[in-house]
Amino acid sequence: MDIKELGEFGLIERIRDAMGPAPEGVLGIGDDCAILPQREGMETLVTTDMLVEGTHFLREDIPAHRLGWKSAAVNFSDIAAMGGRPTGSFLSLGLPRGLDSEWMDAFVAGYRECSDYCGAPLLGGDTTTSPSGICINVTVLGECRRGCSRLRSSAVPGDLVCVTGPLGDSGGGLQVILKGVERDAAAGALVERHYRPVPRVREGQALAATEGVHAMMDISDGIASDLRHILKASKAGAEISTKDIPLSEEMRLVCARHGWDALELALTGGEDYELLFTMAPGSEPPVPYYVIGRITDGQDIVWLGADRDYLGYRHF
Amino acid sequence: MDIKELGEFGLIERIRDAMGPAPEGVLGIGDDCAILPQREGMETLVTTDMLVEGTHFLREDIPAHRLGWKSAAVNFSDIAAMGGRPTGSFLSLGLPRGLDSEWMDAFVAGYRECSDYCGAPLLGGDTTTSPSGICINVTVLGECRRGCSRLRSSAVPGDLVCVTGPLGDSGGGLQVILKGVERDAAAGALVERHYRPVPRVREGQALAATEGVHAMMDISDGIASDLRHILKASKAGAEISTKDIPLSEEMRLVCARHGWDALELALTGGEDYELLFTMAPGSEPPVPYYVIGRITDGQDIVWLGADRDYLGYRHF
Repeated sequence: MDIKELGEFGLIERIRDAMGPAPEGVLGIGDDCAILPQREGMETLVTTDMLVEGTHFLREDIPAHRLGWKSAAVNFSDIAAMGGRPTGSFLSLGLPRGLDSEWMDAFVAGYRECSDYCGAPLLGGDTTTSPSGICINVTVLGECRRGCSRLRSSAVPGDLVCVTGPLGDSGGGLQVILKGVERDAAAGALVERHYRPVPRVREGQALAATEGVHAMMDISDGIASDLRHILKASKAGAEISTKDIPLSEEMRLVCARHGWDALELALTGGEDYELLFTMAPGSEPPVPYYVIGRITDGQDIVWLGADRDYLGYRHF
Repeated sequence: MDIKELGEFGLIERIRDAMGPAPEGVLGIGDDCAILPQREGMETLVTTDMLVEGTHFLREDIPAHRLGWKSAAVNFSDIAAMGGRPTGSFLSLGLPRGLDSEWMDAFVAGYRECSDYCGAPLLGGDTTTSPSGICINVTVLGECRRGCSRLRSSAVPGDLVCVTGPLGDSGGGLQVILKGVERDAAAGALVERHYRPVPRVREGQALAATEGVHAMMDISDGIASDLRHILKASKAGAEISTKDIPLSEEMRLVCARHGWDALELALTGGEDYELLFTMAPGSEPPVPYYVIGRITDGQDIVWLGADRDYLGYRHF
């Protein structure tokens, strides 16, 4: 069925029914604004991301369910990167006429799955027609105790540089898709990590509650780019030990088979949505992590064990 | 200059510089999330709207400055409709390659002018390329004292139905643009009201602080559509006296000259962004308003003095 047959308000009702009700004490979809309570000593976190067809995704390449998951995930990941708890999301959709309602339902199911995983309801949004491709904008709100969020500007020379998981899987998955190579078990796993990144919401809160954890951000463009944001904001440098960059077994396998540079994909591929953080030596975060280098009083990144520089993904 | 030459981070810096800094105690552009303080006894309001080129605007028809104003205004208007004070906005832009930076600068200047008028800083957003048209998404946060926001569901039979200003100017302005009629002083004024609607932020706060003011919303689709949202949410009906619908002098003039139905434009044209509210007789709001009818225990709208029904704008 063409979504046009639903009409605007039918479409909104369908999305609301699929997403479930707002929690007690919160006003969700249906009025001019959503309403969330404020509490003394807390802070509100806000992040927003736009995904445009043809730039961020190709409709024929990514299943609607996965696109729904990913649209939510990239935003929840920003709340995780501050150490916050997500409290609600807002979904704007620009949809071409003639789009099938089955696509829509699968998208919303994926969006809901990620929202449920992160514990945050859909509280509002906007739906409109788009004369060309699909345009998705998600805004997520979160909260944390005042002064407890972790900024990019807090790295200190001597800090260890750490990540919460293997890097490059998502970039490897994108190569599998773009180059159309055979999707065996390993390649399929990489594609799935590209489509369905897991926001490190629990890890982020645990890290923000750990003494000695200083700067934090999520890895969206690859650490070659993202770490530079921390260094710029903290007016510091870093040494990264390239041999300590964690790579998954699947990533090693697929890169070896196709002759791809696993390290380059790990450093510049982006979209892993693991957390990148710095901490004083001796800190004991209660989550799995990998030490990949340290913060220096230099100005840029020194790649130990590499004979070249790495730059991250550029959007324009 | 092509915005591509600025690069993503250059573009973000340019927007940040043009918009000015975040206020004391608020973290704005530059980290994974913005941070706003919470206060005991307050509520956070959130609204979001997407504007898509070819659906909401034609680039050659609307000056970039006016589009910037309007993109902000339609969201601030939703905060006004709840009776809230805007606290910050988030701007996502999907921009075609080759867009001129002058267009961008004018857009941002208009966005800032409206933001300054409403007293709310830009606190974050996203910029990305779009392979087709411009896509704009704005999210605005606001706040009000707990329980003080005005919902659509609070209308009571016997309430007066009121609006804060003349209706139809924006719809009339759109006709001037679409039909290409001569833009004399009156027609030009209507076009300006279509491009540059004024969010009734001060009026909304004053109304929410007035005893006896019950339901409230902003007029985006025309009261024929918008009032029905209040009636549905409040399980009530309404009688509207069509001779009491306020029309501006310019609107009367332009409609008389071109033989347009001023009443139909006033009821169904939409985008006036005046406030529509209901209040107990005898209430004394400290803002200008026009009484146009009353809430009944019926089920729909009775148009007194009209020989037909009116329906609002349909999005799909």
